Amino acid sequence: MNATTAQLLAAVVAGLRVVDLGRTLTVGMPQSPNHPAYWHSLPRRHGDMVRADGGSAANDMISMGTHVGTHVDALAHVSQDGLLHGGLDAAAALQGGRYVELGAHTIEPMVRRGVLLDVPGTLGVACLDPGYEIGIQDLEATVRRQGVVIGAGDVVLVRSGWGRHFDSDPPQFTGHASGVPGVGEAGATWLAGHGVHAVGADTIAFERLAPGAGHGLLPAHRVLLVEHGIYIIETMVLDQLARDGIHEFCFVLSPLPLFGATGSPVRPLAVVGA
Amino acid sequence: MNATTAQLLAAVVAGLRVVDLGRTLTVGMPQSPNHPAYWHSLPRRHGDMVRADGGSAANDMISMGTHVGTHVDALAHVSQDGLLHGGLDAAAALQGGRYVELGAHTIEPMVRRGVLLDVPGTLGVACLDPGYEIGIQDLEATVRRQGVVIGAGDVVLVRSGWGRHFDSDPPQFTGHASGVPGVGEAGATWLAGHGVHAVGADTIAFERLAPGAGHGLLPAHRVLLVEHGIYIIETMVLDQLARDGIHEFCFVLSPLPLFGATGSPVRPLAVVGA
Amino acid sequence: MNATTAQLLAAVVAGLRVVDLGRTLTVGMPQSPNHPAYWHSLPRRHGDMVRADGGSAANDMISMGTHVGTHVDALAHVSQDGLLHGGLDAAAALQGGRYVELGAHTIEPMVRRGVLLDVPGTLGVACLDPGYEIGIQDLEATVRRQGVVIGAGDVVLVRSGWGRHFDSDPPQFTGHASGVPGVGEAGATWLAGHGVHAVGADTIAFERLAPGAGHGLLPAHRVLLVEHGIYIIETMVLDQLARDGIHEFCFVLSPLPLFGATGSPVRPLAVVGA
Amino acid sequence: MNATTAQLLAAVVAGLRVVDLGRTLTVGMPQSPNHPAYWHSLPRRHGDMVRADGGSAANDMISMGTHVGTHVDALAHVSQDGLLHGGLDAAAALQGGRYVELGAHTIEPMVRRGVLLDVPGTLGVACLDPGYEIGIQDLEATVRRQGVVIGAGDVVLVRSGWGRHFDSDPPQFTGHASGVPGVGEAGATWLAGHGVHAVGADTIAFERLAPGAGHGLLPAHRVLLVEHGIYIIETMVLDQLARDGIHEFCFVLSPLPLFGATGSPVRPLAVVGA
Repeated sequence: MNATTAQLLAAVVAGLRVVDLGRTLTVGMPQSPNHPAYWHSLPRRHGDMVRADGGSAANDMISMGTHVGTHVDALAHVSQDGLLHGGLDAAAALQGGRYVELGAHTIEPMVRRGVLLDVPGTLGVACLDPGYEIGIQDLEATVRRQGVVIGAGDVVLVRSGWGRHFDSDPPQFTGHASGVPGVGEAGATWLAGHGVHAVGADTIAFERLAPGAGHGLLPAHRVLLVEHGIYIIETMVLDQLARDGIHEFCFVLSPLPLFGATGSPVRPLAVVGA
Repeated sequence: MNATTAQLLAAVVAGLRVVDLGRTLTVGMPQSPNHPAYWHSLPRRHGDMVRADGGSAANDMISMGTHVGTHVDALAHVSQDGLLHGGLDAAAALQGGRYVELGAHTIEPMVRRGVLLDVPGTLGVACLDPGYEIGIQDLEATVRRQGVVIGAGDVVLVRSGWGRHFDSDPPQFTGHASGVPGVGEAGATWLAGHGVHAVGADTIAFERLAPGAGHGLLPAHRVLLVEHGIYIIETMVLDQLARDGIHEFCFVLSPLPLFGATGSPVRPLAVVGA
Repeated sequence: MNATTAQLLAAVVAGLRVVDLGRTLTVGMPQSPNHPAYWHSLPRRHGDMVRADGGSAANDMISMGTHVGTHVDALAHVSQDGLLHGGLDAAAALQGGRYVELGAHTIEPMVRRGVLLDVPGTLGVACLDPGYEIGIQDLEATVRRQGVVIGAGDVVLVRSGWGRHFDSDPPQFTGHASGVPGVGEAGATWLAGHGVHAVGADTIAFERLAPGAGHGLLPAHRVLLVEHGIYIIETMVLDQLARDGIHEFCFVLSPLPLFGATGSPVRPLAVVGA
Repeated sequence: MNATTAQLLAAVVAGLRVVDLGRTLTVGMPQSPNHPAYWHSLPRRHGDMVRADGGSAANDMISMGTHVGTHVDALAHVSQDGLLHGGLDAAAALQGGRYVELGAHTIEPMVRRGVLLDVPGTLGVACLDPGYEIGIQDLEATVRRQGVVIGAGDVVLVRSGWGRHFDSDPPQFTGHASGVPGVGEAGATWLAGHGVHAVGADTIAFERLAPGAGHGLLPAHRVLLVEHGIYIIETMVLDQLARDGIHEFCFVLSPLPLFGATGSPVRPLAVVGA
């Protein structure tokens, strides 16, 4: 066995803690109205059809968009002036009605170094204000306070504290009236400048959304997805990491390889020693 | 930073190889007719609605069962004589039309030691015969040949070679006429006796299916899910692991926490040193 | 040819006017959050796949509940104290996970006499107040004013004027905050007393909904569906009939025979001479 | 009241017979694999959530294409050389991802004279042979035998007898191996020459399908939909009409106004005197 494999398995034996960064998918959870809502039903429940030997199987029927719940955006999700990442013509990327190029099936599973940037922790608040734009100085102050280094290829998760509204106040979480705090064009450019592989946030759109403006302008998406090929993970659960001061971890993401789709629901993990 | 976390991150730096054990989800892929087929469409493509700044977003609409493509069975999937794992009454486990107890949302993400049992490798064939039951001596001979130990808490993947039919001959993969090779009651009991946490296979139902018999009897499901609380992962891609002789690895599975569902589509990973 | 058939075909030749009483199904239209929303996408558009001869076909993918848009409730929709219409045990009516008894497939197509009761026309208002209960005297005054007779087997459509909010103010149409005007227990009993076959309204739930109370109590559903086996049609378009003073007509309803379902989307018609 | 309305209502009083020409929609019914299959589940069954007053409502979740079960093709369904009916550019007909022009919502409800052409009745067989092309002489011989006249604006239903396979032998009904009897280019041109408004058949694609050829060439669709703007209704139930010798009737079709879709599931009716 390879030495690195042995090291990994030794870590498993030593005891790992897996912090779940994904939202439970439930019917009625907050989401953008632009996407088909998550729905679930059981066509067969136990007892509906029992085999002669007393066995019975229950099963499911699911209907959903791919940008609902915790999810990752594929590079095919956003175009600018008709072009996807790498200057690929958006029309040509589509074959037979699916994004053969840059679709969700092209997202490689991630087992990478992860970094949490706990911005409200730096600002000494529980949650950033609605519509607050996380600026470069917020990001740099957080890096300094936490004493972390962002390396090329890392996955950087930017916490705003806004996730607290997901369960308690769904309309507030989507924030159409109030706006939502997040990274804007400047912050996105700063993140891209560090050569990160993917970014994530505890909000619905990663971006700073202005009050009442909806999702009309998404500059961070343009910078990250189109200009730099950096994946975006949205609606993450980041409060546990912040609470426990876990700022560096092994980040794992295994998107469903949905052929030709523009994103995938995911359950991201932060893995650390127990 | 915790020493184990440091060890994990050192492994990341040293270089990892992530072997993808999941099938790409495509419309028309082989599956059991008992479940809603995977369907995907793009309600919005690039160009359908372009913002004033030249930006455009595409998105998706998905419809599917949870036991299609590569997937994991929740413990709520199968009952015997009206009882789920742990003697839980199947009717009582259901609240408001969903399996609040033992549903897919209760499957903890797995970062565990994984073991491949390459049975056709032991028998010197490319693929086991349709309807072949993988017996205890096959499993033991494979353990011996590979020189591996199965530990409590491991995830054990039993390869049959049958995955080769997935793309090339879908009706053969589902095997309604021919039958499918797999583990039966004896093999399942043997696996459970080793205290494994989950098992997987490169076939549609994990089980040995007799020719022409369909999914009428599923003894391994009863032994594993109901009697021992061991998760089952189906329709995996195991050929790459066998080809490269990777028999031990860090196994990662992060099922979607679908509230109250009986399973989840997944993309399992085998992580080793590069 | 049968004389009645000849009479029908003579009417066709003489010239018919078909008044459409159904809402166009569009993504985002107002509906109750209790039901899966209507979603539509084109998996294949023209040009995605062109045959050698220059032909191309486009097609669709739909996801929806059955109580969205204009729809009819099957008798299986509502139970009281565990019993459906006719004292049928609700659990026994379900076989293999569908309402084999009293499901939508058991609704016979309707070609019947239809009567519009234009209540706001009687009260001299454009639209009834939110939460207004249409009482027996409103119904009787409308019958008197219109000079119509309600016969056994007729389909009676009770207009409130509330349909005006469907397009212009969707949250108002669903009326969770404001309440919705409609028939209550007394009015439903009065309608049932006339031996009608089905009833309809231009509101989301037929019933009078109290402000802020949601769909928690549905007495008219109990009286009509459970106690008398009278079908209910909701979210109808009734303004054109009122505008043109069409109070009697040939009513046509052809629900989709969705096996075992609790309702069906429909496009009801009022047919009169041109 | 208008005299024609009175005539219609007199017919209702005299007694009508409504012959149901639609298939029951059931999970697993035969259909083309090109379209999302019909699926249905009950997210809520009676007893899942009972109100304080003992009332309970059950509801549904549906997923389907629009060209499954008995359905009507909108003019947006088929294009030839990039053009829809009327020379409309197929790309321009699409706005915001839906066929704003010629979509299913543009199909007016039909209350028209209907004519059955019982071709196997003319040929003295129970069912036409697989792959048999119904030619002009078959159509003309049937018109002669039945003593009917096809008028402009009529809806003409061409029976092949093939509907008998729908329930008893689903793969035979879709006929991928065997082929399916139906009208070809010549017959379609003949029908269009009579100025009919819509046509229908008891087969999956209306067309004659050659054995093993699938749906690769659809000349009747081109002639009818694209060249003449004539709607096509498929997978109808026509055996009852033939059995009872009903060759002329009042035909009713009320497609769901699915905005921008290429077709709609329907339940067509033939109405005659009782």
